[in-house]
Amino acid sequence: MQVFDYSTAHKSLVESVEVARFEQYPATLGFPFKAMWYCIPPQDNSPPDRHPEYEFSIAVRGSATVDVNGVRTVVDQGSAFLLDSSEGHTVYNTSPDEALLIFSVYWMPATNSNRCSNDDR
Amino acid sequence: MQVFDYSTAHKSLVESVEVARFEQYPATLGFPFKAMWYCIPPQDNSPPDRHPEYEFSIAVRGSATVDVNGVRTVVDQGSAFLLDSSEGHTVYNTSPDEALLIFSVYWMPATNSNRCSNDDR
Repeated sequence: MQVFDYSTAHKSLVESVEVARFEQYPATLGFPFKAMWYCIPPQDNSPPDRHPEYEFSIAVRGSATVDVNGVRTVVDQGSAFLLDSSEGHTVYNTSPDEALLIFSVYWMPATNSNRCSNDDR
Repeated sequence: MQVFDYSTAHKSLVESVEVARFEQYPATLGFPFKAMWYCIPPQDNSPPDRHPEYEFSIAVRGSATVDVNGVRTVVDQGSAFLLDSSEGHTVYNTSPDEALLIFSVYWMPATNSNRCSNDDR
C-alpha cells in the first residue's frame, strides 16, 4: 500500500491557491485519471478556470462555494461535485478562518474520436 | 454542475459499514472509474476485502488505520492511499467517538489482455 500524505506533498502556488498534483507520485501515472489536492485560503477563491477535462471533486476540509456562470452552489464538507467541459468555474472559500481543501480527479471525456466504437457503453 | 450530497445519498450496509456507491447517479456512469463513500463507525472496521480493482482512497473525515497483510498504516485526514490487486485490506476506525468517512475510486488495472497494444504507456 502506498500512502500519499498531504502534509508532505510537493505543492505549488497558482495565485493564492496551493496545488499538489499526484503526477509527483510515479505510482499514479497509470491511473485512468489525473488527481490533485488544492487548498484555498479563508475568504479567497480559485482563479476562474475552464478546461476540456471533466473534473470530479470532493470537499475534504471545509465547504466549497462553486460558481458556474454566475450561479453559486454550496458543496458541504464530504460532498462531491462534477464539472463538465462546458462549465467555467470559480471555487470560493467563504470561511473567515479555515482553509478549504479539495480533492479532484480529472480526465478527458470519451468522444467519438477516442472511442473504438461509438456506442454509449 | 452536479452536486453529490453525502447526507442524502442512498446508502446500504455492508456489515456495520455504510456504503454509498456513485452508480446511483447516472451522470457518473461514463466515468473511467467507479466511486463510493463508505463510513465506518467509531472503534469498528470494514470487513476484510481483496479484489482485482485498484482502489484509491482519501480520508475525508477522521483518520484511517489500514491493515494490509498484518501491517497497519495510519492515513491522516485529508491524505490518500492506494491498494493494488494483490493487497487484501481491512480499514479500522480507531476513534472512540467519531465516524470515519472514506471516499474511494476503483478501476480494473490495464493488463496485456485489455490493452490494444502491450507497450507501457
